[in-house]
Amino acid sequence: MQTLALGIDIGGTNTAYGIVNRRGEILMKGSLPTTGHATVADYIAAINTELSPLLEKLGRDNVVGVGIGAPNGNFYTGEIIFAPNLPWQGVIIPMANLVGEALGIKAILTNDANAAAIGEMAYGAARGMKDFILVTLGTGLGSGFVANGQMVYGHDGLAGELGHVIAERNGRKCNCGRYGCLERYASATGIVITAELWLAERTDETSLRGHNGKLTARMIQEAAQKGDTFALELYEYTAMILGQTLADMVAVTSPEAIVFFGGLANAGDMLLVPAKKHLEEQLLNIYKNKVKILKSGLPDADAAILGASALAW
Amino acid sequence: MQTLALGIDIGGTNTAYGIVNRRGEILMKGSLPTTGHATVADYIAAINTELSPLLEKLGRDNVVGVGIGAPNGNFYTGEIIFAPNLPWQGVIIPMANLVGEALGIKAILTNDANAAAIGEMAYGAARGMKDFILVTLGTGLGSGFVANGQMVYGHDGLAGELGHVIAERNGRKCNCGRYGCLERYASATGIVITAELWLAERTDETSLRGHNGKLTARMIQEAAQKGDTFALELYEYTAMILGQTLADMVAVTSPEAIVFFGGLANAGDMLLVPAKKHLEEQLLNIYKNKVKILKSGLPDADAAILGASALAW
Repeated sequence: MQTLALGIDIGGTNTAYGIVNRRGEILMKGSLPTTGHATVADYIAAINTELSPLLEKLGRDNVVGVGIGAPNGNFYTGEIIFAPNLPWQGVIIPMANLVGEALGIKAILTNDANAAAIGEMAYGAARGMKDFILVTLGTGLGSGFVANGQMVYGHDGLAGELGHVIAERNGRKCNCGRYGCLERYASATGIVITAELWLAERTDETSLRGHNGKLTARMIQEAAQKGDTFALELYEYTAMILGQTLADMVAVTSPEAIVFFGGLANAGDMLLVPAKKHLEEQLLNIYKNKVKILKSGLPDADAAILGASALAW
Repeated sequence: MQTLALGIDIGGTNTAYGIVNRRGEILMKGSLPTTGHATVADYIAAINTELSPLLEKLGRDNVVGVGIGAPNGNFYTGEIIFAPNLPWQGVIIPMANLVGEALGIKAILTNDANAAAIGEMAYGAARGMKDFILVTLGTGLGSGFVANGQMVYGHDGLAGELGHVIAERNGRKCNCGRYGCLERYASATGIVITAELWLAERTDETSLRGHNGKLTARMIQEAAQKGDTFALELYEYTAMILGQTLADMVAVTSPEAIVFFGGLANAGDMLLVPAKKHLEEQLLNIYKNKVKILKSGLPDADAAILGASALAW
């Protein structure tokens, strides 16, 4: 039978899970804390306590497997490697093996951006596509490249670091130690950095002044929605950097679409309309007017679970 | 049976062909002019006259098909599209269909850089690899990206235009109408442009002075081999631009190797040693000391035929 898949999204605070059918409908879902466990074994035991009764009830034969999305997840090895935002910092956790053995079903793991790409391909905006790029615009910028209907994992499982492609040579210092990485410009963090730089050196009137280092991407979004021209210009600039870097990516993989996902993408047309304009301006002729710019087709709250579950098919 | 493949490389002047076995050995080869035919039908007739007797002799059942490499070739459609350096400018030629029907065997066509990538994978430096990048450094810069053991053609067959990735924002004007494309720096044409710019603005002593617009990449290579420091610095600069752009490509596809092919790549260590140094300096941490830099494993004279023939397997 095998008409169901289990999806687990391991986040810094919570671990969310859901049982998903082939159409991408979540039949049941829940969560448990990621933190507060003394050891990894305790965390696995908590997952087992929560999920084994569920699998018994559904019948293990009906569940094709469990897909796991996690930051710094490696598809090839099933490991979570040195994840800075998870409780297991600086170590390698063979998470797919541990979860698979505990639950007695096939387990597959990948990083969260790749899981999102697979989710879009299975149930979302990229259904039926064989060549597309998924860009997650959250605190950082993540990506998943799909070519010939398959995730591009690279030889070591570490492909798809669009956030660390250089958008501006010798530009802003990045956490990775290098300069000018795209995610220092085009992400929730990046747009706030741009805003703070501009506020310091310009005199425009804007509702974004006076937050003393507590400015957030959400505040910028709200100001832009109220027509604050400074905030709208921040989107325009962010979209320009994003569009010109994506033009280079199109020259590499010639995707049918670029699908945007995550917090900053929720600004929707304010970001994506100028991003498309700048992309088109920068594209090599042969690619013009062919690349679709799409917003994620997965419901926000459940996207991570759906993406993870899609790994199992 | 089907133990042989026919490879055809359509160049601006000559069309070369060869019969190749599974090990990449050319059993027989020849060529005919690409130019001088009144119509495309005449060109196809000339191919037929040359090759049909050969196929009769070998037995058509022993030949799996014909692979065709051509500039501006599209794998999906089998067409040569607006090729600026072929006799059929500004038109679309359904070359795979025409050749396949004339010879009575399966015909597959792709562009010359993709053919080279497939050749390296079948018989050359990338044998056994599933994830690598092939870079051709000739008059221009071409590329083929292989992921999961498959060519990345993109949704329209036009992927792999690394030569038109922007190496320097607002940099040198390119023939494509845009500015700063990699091939304006890292190609036989690019290194000559750099040399001419430097000769005009610098006063270094070098044997490269005084050629009045007739400087060639080969002259630069010969000067560098004789220890001309100006010429060596040209390689160093070219390698820097190449290395930093390739670092971005590694972040996208995480290849096991980057394989270099073509005229400028024949400079060998003079270019590839500094290119590797700059690549490593620019790479995101997780990719460091993992990407092999290789020179083509195909014999120069026969590489295009071998690449084309590999399409047929």
